[in-house]
Amino acid sequence: MITPVILCGGSGSRLWPLSRAARPKQLLPLLGDRTMLQMTASRTSDSTRFAAPVIVAGAQHADEIERQSAEIGIAAGALILEPAPRSTAPAIALAALFAEPERPMLVMPSDHLIRDEEAFFRAVEAALPAAAESCLVTFGVTPDRPETGYGYIRRGIEIAPGVHRAEQFIEKPHLAKAAALAGDGEHFWNSGIFLFRPDAYLHALREHSPAVFEAAAAAAAGARIDGARIEPEADAFARSPAISIDYAVMEKAEHVAVVPVEMGWSDVGCWDAIFDLGEKDGGGNISSGSVLAIDSKGCLIRSDGPSIVAVGVTDLLVLASGDAVLIVPRGQSQRVKEAVEALEARGNGTFG
Amino acid sequence: MITPVILCGGSGSRLWPLSRAARPKQLLPLLGDRTMLQMTASRTSDSTRFAAPVIVAGAQHADEIERQSAEIGIAAGALILEPAPRSTAPAIALAALFAEPERPMLVMPSDHLIRDEEAFFRAVEAALPAAAESCLVTFGVTPDRPETGYGYIRRGIEIAPGVHRAEQFIEKPHLAKAAALAGDGEHFWNSGIFLFRPDAYLHALREHSPAVFEAAAAAAAGARIDGARIEPEADAFARSPAISIDYAVMEKAEHVAVVPVEMGWSDVGCWDAIFDLGEKDGGGNISSGSVLAIDSKGCLIRSDGPSIVAVGVTDLLVLASGDAVLIVPRGQSQRVKEAVEALEARGNGTFG
Repeated sequence: MITPVILCGGSGSRLWPLSRAARPKQLLPLLGDRTMLQMTASRTSDSTRFAAPVIVAGAQHADEIERQSAEIGIAAGALILEPAPRSTAPAIALAALFAEPERPMLVMPSDHLIRDEEAFFRAVEAALPAAAESCLVTFGVTPDRPETGYGYIRRGIEIAPGVHRAEQFIEKPHLAKAAALAGDGEHFWNSGIFLFRPDAYLHALREHSPAVFEAAAAAAAGARIDGARIEPEADAFARSPAISIDYAVMEKAEHVAVVPVEMGWSDVGCWDAIFDLGEKDGGGNISSGSVLAIDSKGCLIRSDGPSIVAVGVTDLLVLASGDAVLIVPRGQSQRVKEAVEALEARGNGTFG
Repeated sequence: MITPVILCGGSGSRLWPLSRAARPKQLLPLLGDRTMLQMTASRTSDSTRFAAPVIVAGAQHADEIERQSAEIGIAAGALILEPAPRSTAPAIALAALFAEPERPMLVMPSDHLIRDEEAFFRAVEAALPAAAESCLVTFGVTPDRPETGYGYIRRGIEIAPGVHRAEQFIEKPHLAKAAALAGDGEHFWNSGIFLFRPDAYLHALREHSPAVFEAAAAAAAGARIDGARIEPEADAFARSPAISIDYAVMEKAEHVAVVPVEMGWSDVGCWDAIFDLGEKDGGGNISSGSVLAIDSKGCLIRSDGPSIVAVGVTDLLVLASGDAVLIVPRGQSQRVKEAVEALEARGNGTFG
């Protein structure tokens, strides 16, 4: 058995204006009818292989997460409500503290797409023996482009079938370096998906980031438990540094492995990715909501608010939600962050 | 003295979504702070030369017209409320029936721009003697491009300084013909602005379009008068053919003259015209309302509704009003009509 741990924090400002503080990316149906969280939770619904998931999320989203889980017939084994976001290392520590200590946990962001789930499951199977021996296993995605927005992992010797020592973690590279890394067959994207025993993670965390370990342990000890909901003690949790699992543990620990996998993975990180992944109509457009596209090509047009009418428009991303409309050419959706920052600087709170 | 007659009917669907049935083009501030009606009415505010204006409009706009008139300190001498739109010939007939019979009336659409008002006034002065002699005078705009959307007038011999016999009215030409007409110095755009004595107009109307004359005369005879407001009798007016002054009178009457004039005229007929006429900011954009344009060039972005955020966008017209957003590339704004027609065919009433 494996305990799925679903990390459901994060805001996804690159998907503004649909994603906002109250409705972050993982709670939105960005690709089809189900939300990203629902797609992630469904992935581990096979109860012969997976226990009920542990979900770590912001307290303000508890009701919506329970609603979305119920909609797909899944009940979280634990819903751990972070008093404040402190990045992934403390969030995973909370999950590890409340999970079966020796049962491997499969840590997954709640907002990634995996199109080839069988390949993913095969990689998890390959990783299980190493995880059982207290190795911290990460899954490395075979690059298909010189992406500068991800971290890379260099694989070392094969220590078990399909499992390699993780030789080096490389932070987001510049384009020339990314091109070299993506092309040499030895480097893989850091997917943010992990498999390890809770005790192995907590052991490594205590050794390499003791402040995170102590804060999480104290917050767990003082937690208020109400059915599946767990509310860690806020003051204790606030003392944790905000730090990712990569910085806090994976880059420092001794027994770290990587399982390379091609599984149709995407972090669905921007509107361009959503256009690329989605199904187009006869005009090469993707539209949803109150949208009328006349003689337009290669556009993503979504609205849950105003009616959008596009005439003679090409290769444009148009996203309308509530009282905000974003217009950006395809290929430039990374720049949405500029817009969100500018709006926040103006202080008109349109992002919130 | 001259009686200004301002034709304030019409819907302007080419300026959707800002112009709608309840807020037609002439009642909108499309170029600066004042509405097109206010700009038109102000043009004849010199009380040494012009009497109080006669305004012909749809009944549903009466309150808004009085509000806009009061805002600029103008009180209509008569506000004639058409029971239903029947095009210009019957509307002008109503004005003529309620105006001083022998005082020339200057008929002006309420939604045109005249940037060189002194040139316009000089043309009106030049036209006055001919109008006094019962000539029907039209003003012909010197073409600056082979426009296929306008009618043209060929000038004949000069019958008074600056005043020519109107030799021929030519309907909207195809492009090759438009290019020939626009370039030969003898043809002028039919501006829809006229000067004539009411009795001369009514005489010609009775001769060439008796059904219009009779319907208008009966509607005027049965009118309900309430202060400046005049409500012609609806059943009588409904019997008038819906026909323009050009078809009903100008193309048929004997004593028709044209005064060619260069006066910075525009019918402000589409969003491209508004972009061309408006003042651009440093990025070559025109924006108003809740708009944030980042690294965008050559765009017109207006909103009286949702917040619009444009990033890296070029040469785009973006118009947001109420719950509708229109996006169309510059140079294609004539196609807005397609969108409005498609919306009407869908029956979702977004235009209304």
